[in-house]
This record gives sequence, structure tokens and C-alpha cells, in this order.
Amino acid sequence: MKHFNSSNIDDLEKLYRINLINSVSGYKSANLIGTASKKGLLNVAIFSSVTHYGSNPPILGFVMRPASVPRHTYENLKETGFYTINHIHNDIVRNAHHTSARYNRDTSEFEKTNLQPEFKDEFIAPYVKDCPVQIGIRFIEEHHIKVNNTILILGQIEHLYIKENLLKQDGFVSLSEGNIVSINGLDCYNKSEPLERLKYAKPNQEVEKYGS
Amino acid sequence: MKHFNSSNIDDLEKLYRINLINSVSGYKSANLIGTASKKGLLNVAIFSSVTHYGSNPPILGFVMRPASVPRHTYENLKETGFYTINHIHNDIVRNAHHTSARYNRDTSEFEKTNLQPEFKDEFIAPYVKDCPVQIGIRFIEEHHIKVNNTILILGQIEHLYIKENLLKQDGFVSLSEGNIVSINGLDCYNKSEPLERLKYAKPNQEVEKYGS
Repeated sequence: MKHFNSSNIDDLEKLYRINLINSVSGYKSANLIGTASKKGLLNVAIFSSVTHYGSNPPILGFVMRPASVPRHTYENLKETGFYTINHIHNDIVRNAHHTSARYNRDTSEFEKTNLQPEFKDEFIAPYVKDCPVQIGIRFIEEHHIKVNNTILILGQIEHLYIKENLLKQDGFVSLSEGNIVSINGLDCYNKSEPLERLKYAKPNQEVEKYGS
Repeated sequence: MKHFNSSNIDDLEKLYRINLINSVSGYKSANLIGTASKKGLLNVAIFSSVTHYGSNPPILGFVMRPASVPRHTYENLKETGFYTINHIHNDIVRNAHHTSARYNRDTSEFEKTNLQPEFKDEFIAPYVKDCPVQIGIRFIEEHHIKVNNTILILGQIEHLYIKENLLKQDGFVSLSEGNIVSINGLDCYNKSEPLERLKYAKPNQEVEKYGS
């Protein structure tokens, strides 16, 4: 196996290190986060750090880069208290990736891409139209990560929209049937296919296939 | 689309809600975290919340459940200051899932499954043998999440082992070539395949294929 220790990692060329370290957390979720400023300017940006924090109450988290770069998503969600999380599927991969380009705050990524905003339930933040999973979130708390000045944002699910055929009888949502993608590293978009669902594991018992 | 608002979600049957909310963060990384107690008892447990926090320094985070359930991983990493993150691949999915069974602290999951510990570089925490990516981590900081008493654990990469053929010339690590899996929801293990890598996005330019 190839071995890097911490000083080898320090010495790596910058882009090599970014590719390497972004790859080794494993597959990442691929989401578009939609926000509106108080003045009604819309923003949509790609994030690969959305993580489950709990089901009751239903909490999701995501990570913001340091304050030194423009963070329109952060400014908007702090101003209004709300944002949306929308799952990226095959048909919008390139448009989703395009949202990572550095536009200034007056420019809406909805105007620069083929992504379309959608409003429902008088929720202030825009959803991304046609995404198979759309989530309306209320901001709850933030944590400042000391080691590198990133910010963890936590929010609670207020609205959840799921394409009917993805939702199974037991609450499971089949991401693969929605052609929802994952991300490997910085820039590699992946499609997925189930290997198997497994039953809840119990001590001293062989793990069994779900439903068996 | 099927719509749930926050009070619909509150009213869901418990297991249905767990399946639903665990599915809607998107694909999750699938990792085994290895630890040792000061006395040398080994622990290995499955986690689906490992997230990239930064490349310089190289920081990964993961989420622990509330203190009310036994958390041998937490106790051990706080005692020793070190842990390992190992990627789950096709051949060990059922053994990895088995580590979620509730064994008491005196029982090592390495004895109850076919997973084997591996020690290198005098690092105190055990790696999981034959995993295509193995990461030795030093604990850095923790954050207590107020809304649901979960804990975010952050650590810095001290050692990184990668199966040679997965590591590409630019630092990209191909998770799919290592048969590394992702998780959908609580219990569905998925294999992945690349759709495409894309170039760094720039304002007012069409997104292009990487390498083009």
C-alpha cells in the first residue's frame, strides 16, 4: 500500500493534497443548498458535506468553508433562518457543479445555470425544481471549528418532499431509483446501485438480509 | 411528490421515521472506526457520518450518538487520543454491519466477526486488515450538539494507507475501483460507478469534463 505520514501530507503540492484528502472520507452526499437574502436575491450552491445528525427531532448538518471566502449561503441563512437541501440527480450534474463558480452576491446561480427555483408552502428559501428529494430546513445552531475555521451548520427539517416512487413502505427512500448521485473527491460524480439491505444486527447472530 | 411537514414527521411511527430521516441526507460514507482502550482492549464499530472538514491540515469529522448508549469508541479515543478510519468494501459488508450489535465493553468486535486488526507504525489504534483505505487519526476537538446531545469528533490524519491501484496521478483516490461501498439510509449498502469527473467551475463558462 502507498503510505503517507503527516509530514509527507504537509509536503504535497496543493492540488494533489486537495484531491487526496477530499477522496479519503469516502463517498459524499451531493446536494444543492438554496437560500434567499432578505431582499429576495436567490442563491443556490453545491455542498458535499450534508450529514445525518438525528431523526427525532430530524436534524441535518453541513460544513461551510472559512470566512475568508464569500459565503452567500451562510449570509442568507443567517439573515432569514431558512434554507433548502435538494438532491443532485443525473440530469443536473453539470449545472450543479457550475454553482461552485465564484459569482458575486448580486448574481443568482439560478440565472447562470439551467437550475430553476421553486417556491412552496410560503417557505422563504427556494427549492430546486425537479429534484427527487427537496428538504425545507430551519437553522438551529452553528459550531465554529477551531482547527481550521470551518463552520458546522445544523438545521431541523420543516418540510420534506419525496418523489412518490422512491418512498418505500417502511420509510426507506431509494436514492438510486431517483438517479441521485454521490461525489468521490472534489469532482467525480458517481451513480449507485444497491448491493443489499441488512437486518438490524444482534450480538452473536449472523447478519441477515432485510426482509428475510 | 409525497409531502411531510414537521408535525407529520413528529407523528410517524419510530422505525418509519428512522428509515426516512436516515435516507434523506443522501449517500453516506461507510467506515469502520478502530480504537484500543488503555488496557489494550480493541474495539471496531461502523459509522456512516465521516465527513471531510479540510485538507490543510487534513481534518475528518464524525458524529457520535448521545451519551445514553454505550460508546466504547468515544471512551477509547478520549483515553488514548487516537483512532483509525477504514473503508468498508464489498467483501466485508456483513461483518462491518455486525459491529453495530450491542456488545459490552469487554467484548472485542474483532473476536465476534471475521474482521482482523492490523497494527503499524507503533500507532495504538488498530486498523482493519485488507481495507483499501486505512487512516490513522489523532483526536483534535469535539463539539457538543445542543439540539440532540450528539457529539461531533474532529481529528487530524497522521497516517494514510491507500491500495496502490486506487491512487491516481493527481492525488484522486478512486473509491469505486476499491469496491468501497456507500450507505443509503440505515441499512442499504450500495456499490458505485463514476459518471464523470468535471473541471473546476468558472463563472460564465460551460462546465467541462476533467482532462479535456
